[in-house]
Amino acid sequence: MPTTPSEHTPGSLPAEFSFIGRHFRPLAGVGALDLQDDAAIIAPPPGRELVLSADAMVEGVHFLPDDPPATIGRKLLRCNLSDLAAMDARPLGYLLTVSRPPGLSDAWFAAFCAGLAEDQQTYAIRLLGGDTTSTRGPLVLSLTIIGHVAPGAALRRSGARPGDEIWVTGTIGDGALGLQARLGTYDDPTGFYAERYQLPRPRTGLSLGSIASAGMDISDGLVQDLGHIARASGVGIEIEASRVPRTDPVPETLELCLTGGDDYELLLAVPPGNAASLLAECHAAGVPVTCIGCCTAADAGVSVVGADGAPLTFARAGWSHLLD
Amino acid sequence: MPTTPSEHTPGSLPAEFSFIGRHFRPLAGVGALDLQDDAAIIAPPPGRELVLSADAMVEGVHFLPDDPPATIGRKLLRCNLSDLAAMDARPLGYLLTVSRPPGLSDAWFAAFCAGLAEDQQTYAIRLLGGDTTSTRGPLVLSLTIIGHVAPGAALRRSGARPGDEIWVTGTIGDGALGLQARLGTYDDPTGFYAERYQLPRPRTGLSLGSIASAGMDISDGLVQDLGHIARASGVGIEIEASRVPRTDPVPETLELCLTGGDDYELLLAVPPGNAASLLAECHAAGVPVTCIGCCTAADAGVSVVGADGAPLTFARAGWSHLLD
Repeated sequence: MPTTPSEHTPGSLPAEFSFIGRHFRPLAGVGALDLQDDAAIIAPPPGRELVLSADAMVEGVHFLPDDPPATIGRKLLRCNLSDLAAMDARPLGYLLTVSRPPGLSDAWFAAFCAGLAEDQQTYAIRLLGGDTTSTRGPLVLSLTIIGHVAPGAALRRSGARPGDEIWVTGTIGDGALGLQARLGTYDDPTGFYAERYQLPRPRTGLSLGSIASAGMDISDGLVQDLGHIARASGVGIEIEASRVPRTDPVPETLELCLTGGDDYELLLAVPPGNAASLLAECHAAGVPVTCIGCCTAADAGVSVVGADGAPLTFARAGWSHLLD
Repeated sequence: MPTTPSEHTPGSLPAEFSFIGRHFRPLAGVGALDLQDDAAIIAPPPGRELVLSADAMVEGVHFLPDDPPATIGRKLLRCNLSDLAAMDARPLGYLLTVSRPPGLSDAWFAAFCAGLAEDQQTYAIRLLGGDTTSTRGPLVLSLTIIGHVAPGAALRRSGARPGDEIWVTGTIGDGALGLQARLGTYDDPTGFYAERYQLPRPRTGLSLGSIASAGMDISDGLVQDLGHIARASGVGIEIEASRVPRTDPVPETLELCLTGGDDYELLLAVPPGNAASLLAECHAAGVPVTCIGCCTAADAGVSVVGADGAPLTFARAGWSHLLD
C-alpha cells in the first residue's frame, strides 16, 4: 500500500517486520499467532458476551511530546481498560496500531513496549495483533480492547432511575490538575498530579453489574459525563460540589476538577438499597467510593449545587476530543 | 484527555458528539448501542472462534490526499475484510478510529461515511464502535475487524507442504499499476487501474479451510508474500512468472506487478488432490483462480522463473509500511 519502496533484497524481511519482531512480538499472547498471520484467533469464553471498545491518542492532543514513552502506551491501554471496567467486563486482549513519525528512535519504542509489558502483567491482558505504519505527522496510537461479560449483565449508561444515588470511585480532578502541572500552570512538587495524568488507574476487578443501575467511566469531565448518564437514562441528576472527593478540596480548583476530564474513575447510579453492597464490594477491592448526589425527576438536566444549596454555573461542562 | 477545552455550554453536547451522531451513528449496527456507551456488546456465534485484525491507513502513505473520500474508508474496510477472507473467517463487525486534521469538511465525512454504508451492505458487516479525535497532522484511520471461524479451521500461513501447488485468485499487479496511474506515471485511460488501487475486492464468501493447506492475502507484493508462506511453513516456493495472471501481461510491468503490493487477492497453498475442489469452490463464487507454481523442498527460498526456466531477479521483493 505505501508509496515508497522498502530497501531490502528479495528473501530478506523489510524494516517493518524486524521492527515488529523486536518490539511487539514479545508482547504477543496466546491467539496472536506470533503476529505472523493476517489475524489473531481467540476462543471466546463459552456463554459470555463480548465487549469491544476502541480509542485513539494523538501526540500533542492526548499526551505531550515529552511524556515518558513508558507511560504513553500504558495510558491508552488503561483508558480502554477503564471502558471495560465501566461495563463490568473482564479483559481478554487488545490490538494496537502505531502510526510512527520518522523522529522516534528505537530506544523510544523499547521504553514504550516495556511500559506495555508491565501493564500486561498488572492487568492480565495480552497483545493480539495490530499494525505499524509511517506518518509524516505526529505519533498516532489506536487501541481496540476486547473483553467479556455475563450475558445481559453489562452495565449501561441508560439504566439510572429517579431516586438512585450517584457514586464515584477515587478522587476527581487529579488528572486535570496533572495536565496543568505538566503545562507548568499548577504547582506539583511531588509529581503526584502529573503521574495521575500520565498513568490513570482503571477500576478493574470490581463486580458491579448486579449492584449499580447505570455506569460509565469519567473521561471527559464529571459534569459532562453526568449529562451522558442523565440523557441516556432520561433522568435529572443533582450533585453537591462539596461531596465530590478531591485530593485537595480548595475552592480555586473546583471548576477544573469537576469539568477537566482524564479521571478514569467510575461514575455509578445505585439504587439506595444497594449502597451497602456497593460499599462492601469496593472496600474488599480497596477502592474508595463516595456518594455525591442523586437522580431526580425525568429530564431535569444536571445541576451542581454549592454548600448553600444554590446551583453553581461553570463556563464549560467538559472536554471535546474534536476541535471544530 | 485533550489539551484544548471545547466551547460549549453545560448541558449541551460538544462538537465531537454531534459529529459522531451526524456521520457515524447511522452506520452503527446491533451491539453498537448507538455508539452511546463506553463499549459495544456482541454475542459471538456459539462454538465459533473469533478472528481479529487491525490495520491503519495514513494520508500520503496508504492513500492520496485527493482520492475520493467515498473510497478511503471502503479501502481500509476491504483490506481488513481481505485479512478475514485469508483466514477463511466470516465478518461480524468493525471498530474505527479517525484522527481528523482541521481541514477536512463535513461534506468530506458525509461522502466518507456514504462509502462505508455502501460496503456495509455489500459485505454484511456493521460498525460496532470507535473514536474520533483531532490531529494537526495527516488523516489517520485505524480499523479493527472481528470475524468468526469454525474452531481449528482458520487458514494459516504455516501449513504449506512440499508438493503443494501455489494458487492465486484474480489478477496480480492491478493495484500497483493503479498507484502509478494515480501518480501520473502509467497510462490508464479508462480509470480501471486507479479503481483497482482505490477499491480492492476482498475475496470473501469462499470456503477454503478444508481445501487449502495455507493461505494469506497478497498485500505487500506477491514475491514478498510468497516469502511469508515459505518461511512460516518451512518450505521453498517456485513460481513461473508467465503463469501469474495479469490484466495486461506485457514484460515491461512484470516486476512491478509481482512486487508492487495492493492486490488483496488470496495466495493459497493447495495439496494437488484438492485442486478440483478449489476450482469448483471458486467457480461457484465467480472468482478466477490460477495455479502459478508449487512448494519445493524445505527452506529453499522463493524463486521466480522465466519462460526459459531460468530464475529472474528483482531489485526489490515488496513494500514495507515502515520507512527506517
